[in-house]
Formats: sequence, C-alpha cells, structure tokens
Amino acid sequence: MKTVNVAIMGIGTVGGGTYEILKKNRALIKRTQGVDVVVTKILDRSAELIEKRTGNKDIAVTNLDDILSDDKISIVVETMGGVEPAKTFIKKVLLSGKSIVTANKELLSKHWAELEQAAKDGGAGLYFEASCVGGVPVIRTLTESLQGDNVLEIMGIINGTTNYILTKMTEEGMSYGQALKEAQDKGFAEFDPTADVEGFDAVYKLSILSSLGFHTCIPYTEIYREGISKITVNDIESGKELGYTVKLLAIGKKKGNKVEVRVHPTFVPSAHPLAAVRNEFNAVFLKGDCVDDVMLYGRGAGALPTGSAIVSDIIYCAKATERRYTDFENNGKLNAPTEILSDFDSKYYIALSVSDKPGVLSKFTEVLGNYGISLNSVIQKGAADGFAQIIFLTHTTTENAVRNAVDEIGKLKVVKSVDSLIRVI
Amino acid sequence: MKTVNVAIMGIGTVGGGTYEILKKNRALIKRTQGVDVVVTKILDRSAELIEKRTGNKDIAVTNLDDILSDDKISIVVETMGGVEPAKTFIKKVLLSGKSIVTANKELLSKHWAELEQAAKDGGAGLYFEASCVGGVPVIRTLTESLQGDNVLEIMGIINGTTNYILTKMTEEGMSYGQALKEAQDKGFAEFDPTADVEGFDAVYKLSILSSLGFHTCIPYTEIYREGISKITVNDIESGKELGYTVKLLAIGKKKGNKVEVRVHPTFVPSAHPLAAVRNEFNAVFLKGDCVDDVMLYGRGAGALPTGSAIVSDIIYCAKATERRYTDFENNGKLNAPTEILSDFDSKYYIALSVSDKPGVLSKFTEVLGNYGISLNSVIQKGAADGFAQIIFLTHTTTENAVRNAVDEIGKLKVVKSVDSLIRVI
Repeated sequence: MKTVNVAIMGIGTVGGGTYEILKKNRALIKRTQGVDVVVTKILDRSAELIEKRTGNKDIAVTNLDDILSDDKISIVVETMGGVEPAKTFIKKVLLSGKSIVTANKELLSKHWAELEQAAKDGGAGLYFEASCVGGVPVIRTLTESLQGDNVLEIMGIINGTTNYILTKMTEEGMSYGQALKEAQDKGFAEFDPTADVEGFDAVYKLSILSSLGFHTCIPYTEIYREGISKITVNDIESGKELGYTVKLLAIGKKKGNKVEVRVHPTFVPSAHPLAAVRNEFNAVFLKGDCVDDVMLYGRGAGALPTGSAIVSDIIYCAKATERRYTDFENNGKLNAPTEILSDFDSKYYIALSVSDKPGVLSKFTEVLGNYGISLNSVIQKGAADGFAQIIFLTHTTTENAVRNAVDEIGKLKVVKSVDSLIRVI
Repeated sequence: MKTVNVAIMGIGTVGGGTYEILKKNRALIKRTQGVDVVVTKILDRSAELIEKRTGNKDIAVTNLDDILSDDKISIVVETMGGVEPAKTFIKKVLLSGKSIVTANKELLSKHWAELEQAAKDGGAGLYFEASCVGGVPVIRTLTESLQGDNVLEIMGIINGTTNYILTKMTEEGMSYGQALKEAQDKGFAEFDPTADVEGFDAVYKLSILSSLGFHTCIPYTEIYREGISKITVNDIESGKELGYTVKLLAIGKKKGNKVEVRVHPTFVPSAHPLAAVRNEFNAVFLKGDCVDDVMLYGRGAGALPTGSAIVSDIIYCAKATERRYTDFENNGKLNAPTEILSDFDSKYYIALSVSDKPGVLSKFTEVLGNYGISLNSVIQKGAADGFAQIIFLTHTTTENAVRNAVDEIGKLKVVKSVDSLIRVI
C-alpha cells in the first residue's frame, strides 16, 4: 500500500471540505484506490484557526518552509485563493518537486504558463480539476474523454452566484438587489460580489476551459465580459413572454483557426436543458465533432463538491506514474495561428423606451434594415407619460451590426433610452 | 512521436465510426496528444465488406491470427458485439499481450472477471468506456473523477431505443407499436427489439456501472428487470395529469452493505432534469457522498459518439504507462459482504379496471391500508360498459407491500383487471 502525505495551504471552506473528505473516506480510498492519503500538515495564518477548523493542532504550521522541508510530503493542496501569496507559494512548492492540486481559477487563468513551467522545472505535477465548476468533472472530460474529438463549442452556466440571483429574479420576481442580498445571506455571494456578478469568475473559468478544449492559450483578457447587474425584472418578464429564460452564459466557439469567447447574460429558450439549471447549480455543454453534445451538470461550488474534485486530483496525482503538462507555446500568449473573433453571430433582444407617437416603429425598423438586421418579433408595451417600451427580437445577425444599429437608434430624437441589449441563443 | 498500430475487429456501425474518426482526426490527435494512431488491420467476415466500408482493402484481414501474429499492433478494438466469437477473440488478443478497447456491454457484464483475468495474464489492458452510454463519459467519471467519493446512487436513462419510443408515445400520442416501428425505420431499434425494449441492454449497462461505482461485482442476473412493452398511451396520459413523464430508468442504490439494482419504467416528475431527456438521448445521475449529484447527458449510441468513446480509450491506453485492473474478488460473483436487496422503497402508480358500483373504492383503500400503504391521490375515470378505471398514486412504501396488496386487490370480485403498476420517483 502506497502512503501519500499531503499538505493543505488554506483551511477555508474548500480546504476544510478537502480535509473532511480525506478523513471521512480514507478507508474507502485505501480499499478501492490502493493509496493511503494522509494530511500531515495544514498551513494557515494561525495555529489556533487550524485547530478550530480541524480539531487537530499537531498538523498546524504557519510557515511555508515547514512544508517545503518535509520530504515525506509529495502533494500540496492550494485552497488559499487569489493571486498572491498563492502564486509565490505554489511556485516554491512546484520547484521543490512536490505536486500541486489547486482550486484557484483566478491564479491559473492569469499565470498558467508560468506555473506549468515551474512544474516542469521541478518535475512536479499541476492539477486543477477544482478550478472550474466545482465537483463537475469538466476538466477531466476535456483531457481524458474528448481527446479524440475536435472540440467545437463550450457553453454553460459556470457561475453559481449569478445563476442563483437570476433564478430568484425569474421565479420569485425579486429585484436584482433583493436577490443579491438573499444570495449573500445564504453564503452564495461574497460581501463584495463584483467578481461573480460582473462575470470575472466566469471569464477566468472560460479562459481555462477554452484553452484546454481548443488546445491553444485563450488569455482571459481576450474574453468579452458583461455581468448581470443591469438585468431587470422587466427584461426577465418580457423574456418569459417570448419563451426565454435569462442565464449568464460562458460561450466559446472554434471555427477553424478563429475562436470566439464571451461571457454575458443570455436568453435561453425555456425548453433548452440549460434553462432548467436552477439556483446555484452549474452545467456545461461540450460539443465535439464526433461525440456531438455532452452536458455535465452539478454543484459548481461548496466545501464538499469542490473538495471532491480536489480529492479526485490528489488520487489521480498519487497514482500517476508520469507527469503531463499543458503545453502553452509563446509563454501564455495566444498561440498562432489562432485568432480571436471580435465580431460574432447571435440573435438579439433589444428594449427601447420611446415617444409614443404614430410612425416611430418604422424609424427603428428602417435603421435595423439598413444594417441587414431582420426581425423575428416586436412587442410594444403600454405607454406611461407619453413613453412606450418597444422590444425587438432579431433573427441571427452579427454583434457589430447590432451595436452600430443600436448606437444609431439611441441617437434618434424619439428614443428616450436604450434599456437593454441581451443576446439570445 | 509514439506510433500506435491498431486493429479493429468488426467493421459495423461503431467499428466504421471508429475508423472514420481515427482517419479524420489523426493530425489533431498527433498534435494534441503526442500519439500517432494508425489503423493497420481490420477484421471482418469478408475483405469485400471491409473494402466497401473503408475504401481500403489493404488493411482487410479475415483471420484473427493475422492480428495476433502482428507484433506491431498493440491495441485491438472489438466492435463485433454479442458473446461469441467476441469472447474467444478478446481472450486470445489479451493473452497475446495486446490491449482491448471494447464497446461490448453484453460480453463485459456476463464475463468481466474472466476477461480481466486474461488481461492480467497477458499483461494487457481492458478498456470499455464505449460499453455504457456511448459518447457520455460515465465510466471515466466513475473511475477518474469520483474516486474519492462514496457513490451512493446511479440513476439514469441508459437506453436510447426505449427513450425514443417513450418520447414518441408521450409527445405524439403514438401507440407502443407505432413508436417501435418508427424507431426501427430510423435505425434506433433492431429488427428484433427484445434486448432494448425488455430492458436487457439497460441491465447489462447497470451491471457494469454499479459494479464500478459500488466497488463490488453486481452480476446482471441480480438486477430486477421490466421492459416498456406494456406501457400504454393511457398510462402516459394519466401520468401527465399527475405531473409525471414515463422513462425507462436504471437505478442502483447503495445503503451500507446493501445494494438495490433495478431497471423498469418509471414516472419521473415533469420538472426533473431526466424528464427533459428526449428521443435517443441518454443521461445518468451519479450521487456521491461528497460531490452530491452530477448528471452526464449526451448521445448513448451511434457511429461517431460511440466511436468517440472508443478513440478516447485508444488514446488513454496508448498513453498509459501501467495497466490497472478492476479487481473482482470471488471470480465475478457478488462480493461479500454486499447483499442485494430484494425489497426497496418507492412510490407507485396503480391502475385498475373495476365495477362501477358505489363503495368499491373503500374496498381497495382498506386493502392498501392493511399493508401500510397510504395514498397521495386517487383518480377515477369515466365508466364504460359498467367498468371504471381507478388510479392510485401512493406515498413512499415498499415493493413487497405493494405487490402483496395488488395481488390481494386483483382477487377482489369487483376488479376486472390490474392494468398497470408503475414505480414513481
């Protein structure tokens, strides 16, 4: 029986969940995997905190050197989060020859090439199933199941906070602010929710997933990003009338050497499987040229689901007889010949507040027509104070055409405001 | 660059799909996986057939020895199907030291331990992602993602033929016979559909999945099996009124050392994600004690989706630096201390044709009450020729209680017939 000594850096929610699983399922893992995984050191700011979280003060350390100098430790879990000091710690660990299992999507998406290089230099492994979509095995599916497929599309709900907020707004008619507050009260949103609600978290994950799926580095800075904070109950209600549910989608598509990558609120047909993904749940569609659509669904966050992904990586790493690296040529920059498309095809929902006068509709349809945009449907809603709301649902057109058309429409005298522009799949 | 020479035994739908993928994506696989996979021999009954299917007669062989004696071939794909001669062929291949990638669920569920032994004896690998749910990576998820979880439940739609038939009956009001014929015309059902419609195919897959998930051999003969051929449009319509959609579910549950395993038509709440799995699509829920519910969805059959799973196994096998075996103690028999539960908990839908007389209802509720069965709802449907249909929906009770109660109810003079007994989740 092989014994593997593990250290955990950061005993917060996910680190604590990892520790709990390794204790609870130690015998099962020994019996079924042939590996005895033992946590022998936990690093955090204070020994008291570690004792409080684990009931065990003998394994508490507050100095990274205590882990680096322990020759018996071969795998180190990083569940600190954030870029620093996680990055410095991980590089030291990797260079010392110990493998890293991390849940840190922000760090990975920002410094992946540098971390892979440190892993190579140290002869260590870098594992990150837990960095994307918690317990949902999307990384392993890309690397160990769709290896023979040309992955053409990655599309999903990969942020639980925003999905929880949008579900509450959709199903209970809550305002964005009310839903955010409930998410914060339930621990699904941070005190400062920016990273989630403005789409940064989803962008980090899409950068990782699309880089793996498309076999080329897709820097997170290249991903179009739009959050959910401007979505109104009115948009949601109008979407329902048209047969759509709003979701924050991450979308990556590959067309030959061209890639489009974007995170934005999206109207999904209510019969689409993604529309049924509610509350804090996540789901990802992967389209391969052979396997067609595969969808993975589950809990994208939480102590035990994310801990489960970390434990899976620990066992995977412990049983691996050789290290494999994700090869990013060009040191983490977009690899030639891949290009990022700035324009892309979509359908659109456009909501305007306009003067309620005869003939205004024709002004808009004329502008849309000039940009080659044809309409699927138009809804005009009751006027108040001389203003009406007009909603257009377009057929498939291009992002640039719609932006230019909406720009021009926004300057028309009869238009009070362009209220919403939401992409539709 | 490592070159891997592969032989394919059986150039039918799935073998043909595998060949096509390996040709089409050869450059991609070389570039991203670092392995050049080349099909150098294909075995089938006639060289003409092979040439017709592949356009290549140079690789056609009709004698297994031509593969066995080729030292350059290290991986052999088995896509012949059925028990013999596939079993004899696979054992010879494994004993010769070549690894097997197979899609053969029937053979695997019936003779897994014997095949694993041959693999061990030959120092070869045995890979079978394609044996269960086509392109959906459920095997890899069990073995490489949920290794640290105690898998408590496996539940899903794992037969596309029956799901196609039930979808047509549900959405288009077709009779079972009409829907079966359409499935046959479209190639989703065999000329002799017994293996699919009577649940054998699902039983084979559940045997494999539950054995892997529960880490103990679950012989297919231990699995309760009931097909869909008795489901009527009337059942489906009554289910809809009650908020349910009928699906052929495979269910495996582990409770300590006790396991329940069953395949039968099941009413699923219409809001449940499995209710939205339509036509030939498949989906499997895996519940782990840490990761909670994970659902995998996709195409459970077809040349390219199943071929994708085979190609994934070929690459996985080609890159593996050591062989791992599924250890079935007791030579493929149920391993102590695991026990199969013959009784289990469920809710039930019971439909009776009864004499339309005052007071009959109380006779049934009395019998049900005697067995401790309480009711969620009762529907009485219009009488014809003096008979009415009564439908009971029970609260959670036990299989044995319901069987005994229905047995007793069936003997009551006022009962013309017990029309349906469908389990409900």
